[in-house]
Amino acid sequence: MNLLYALDLIGTFVFAISGLRLAAKKEMDLFGASVIACVTAVGGGTVRDLLIGATPVAWITNVHYGVAIILAVPVTIIFRKYIVELKRTIFIFDSIGIALFTISGMEKAFSYGLSPSMAISMGVVSAVIGGVIRDILCNEIPLIFRKEIYATACLIGALFFFVLSKMGLNTDLNYILTTSLIFSIRVIAIKYNLSIPKIR
Amino acid sequence: MNLLYALDLIGTFVFAISGLRLAAKKEMDLFGASVIACVTAVGGGTVRDLLIGATPVAWITNVHYGVAIILAVPVTIIFRKYIVELKRTIFIFDSIGIALFTISGMEKAFSYGLSPSMAISMGVVSAVIGGVIRDILCNEIPLIFRKEIYATACLIGALFFFVLSKMGLNTDLNYILTTSLIFSIRVIAIKYNLSIPKIR
Amino acid sequence: MNLLYALDLIGTFVFAISGLRLAAKKEMDLFGASVIACVTAVGGGTVRDLLIGATPVAWITNVHYGVAIILAVPVTIIFRKYIVELKRTIFIFDSIGIALFTISGMEKAFSYGLSPSMAISMGVVSAVIGGVIRDILCNEIPLIFRKEIYATACLIGALFFFVLSKMGLNTDLNYILTTSLIFSIRVIAIKYNLSIPKIR
Repeated sequence: MNLLYALDLIGTFVFAISGLRLAAKKEMDLFGASVIACVTAVGGGTVRDLLIGATPVAWITNVHYGVAIILAVPVTIIFRKYIVELKRTIFIFDSIGIALFTISGMEKAFSYGLSPSMAISMGVVSAVIGGVIRDILCNEIPLIFRKEIYATACLIGALFFFVLSKMGLNTDLNYILTTSLIFSIRVIAIKYNLSIPKIR
Repeated sequence: MNLLYALDLIGTFVFAISGLRLAAKKEMDLFGASVIACVTAVGGGTVRDLLIGATPVAWITNVHYGVAIILAVPVTIIFRKYIVELKRTIFIFDSIGIALFTISGMEKAFSYGLSPSMAISMGVVSAVIGGVIRDILCNEIPLIFRKEIYATACLIGALFFFVLSKMGLNTDLNYILTTSLIFSIRVIAIKYNLSIPKIR
Repeated sequence: MNLLYALDLIGTFVFAISGLRLAAKKEMDLFGASVIACVTAVGGGTVRDLLIGATPVAWITNVHYGVAIILAVPVTIIFRKYIVELKRTIFIFDSIGIALFTISGMEKAFSYGLSPSMAISMGVVSAVIGGVIRDILCNEIPLIFRKEIYATACLIGALFFFVLSKMGLNTDLNYILTTSLIFSIRVIAIKYNLSIPKIR
């Protein structure tokens, strides 16, 4: 639990950075960029909580999420040049982030008594909706609808996590294996430029 | 009830197809297209349920909606050419779909004790919001804000349904009459190119 | 309370007008424009209510908000020319509107037991999200992410309101002082073309 929670906060922090970077590209001011950072970081979990009726949503009653986001602002500005060069690092953190959000989203859905198929859906929703809202607010077609394997990695990871937990695997070990799987799928997809076939 | 439920699922199925077709036009991949299909099909009912506090929302606890959407994917791909030629058929199903969603949305709102004016609003919300979210995700100004009579047909149908049910009409008959009315308004609006005056 | 409620309705009315005007610029029809008016006027409060779990949301159980919005339609059409010339008047009402929504949003959040930092966030959300949704539906990057000090005025006002109420100031006086502060910040920002530095 503590491991998952820590990683959840890291995911929040890293997603906030990805929001700030897109906002900078769109020449937004500091306030607008902070809003984008917030919705990117907590958007997925918020939609999940609304859909399953877990209100007030998590970040309203737990201040740590807000702190993680606020911390991301100076870090992004100070390490700006470093972050640009570390595009690879961002990619790594982002991929870890979606993996963690997939898992924590599923766990929360199960704790509310949802069926496995819906818990898996909620895992994917938690991982990808933040980025979708970020892109809509920036007036772009959400990247997950166009780019390389992204949400699909979450979906595969969520199925994997469910099967392993049904098989009675130790939860912490399952966290690590699932995170590794989602991370590996993303790396391989990028390296070999894999993508899902377009419809039609 | 059983009639309404069956028609509700048909509406879900048909709306999913309309989402898949727009996604194909936007050259999305299969996963992205499936997401668009989902939000088109369940978006309206989801927003209605969130607003009236009926959480978890309907499709989370009832797997049939998900099945209807998943079925739409192979059907759209296999009958692709057929569907393009059957644009008229899609239009027919879509028009039936909004009629059914208007009615089922109102019935749900009434069952939560809403006032008539709000129940009518929730009927229109149920029918049209899915398409609005679909268009936003595809980065277009929602069609209902530009095109021929669409949401207005739902609004007129909702009023008609309310008046008839106040007059004590048999519910099943009312379903059929209201569906026919909304359907007819749409057909006539298309045939004679009717539209609502623009503002200003 | 009565003062706040009356001003809340005025804010709803004025925001509806701002939605109608943008819809007219986008050449929407009367129905689409009315929908834009609704979401502009009640969007912020709706998102706030969903996040804190205050469902059904306020305007579903209180018909006065709907009446305020419906009234805005003929007023905008009849006084069209007058409103264009009175751009300054709209600006004034809009600025009063965000001030009032900031305060009423905070008060509602406090009444649901939220922490001060979250109540302040909910105040800003109530004030600005309606305009954000309006801009997304019209396929524009939300103005608050680009323009002069707007949401920041709400944030400063919300902090001010909180500090003064902690100091035991009379509530009605606090309403007036906070509204004046937010209003003044906006006027000064426009007059001297102040803006927040862009990120990067």
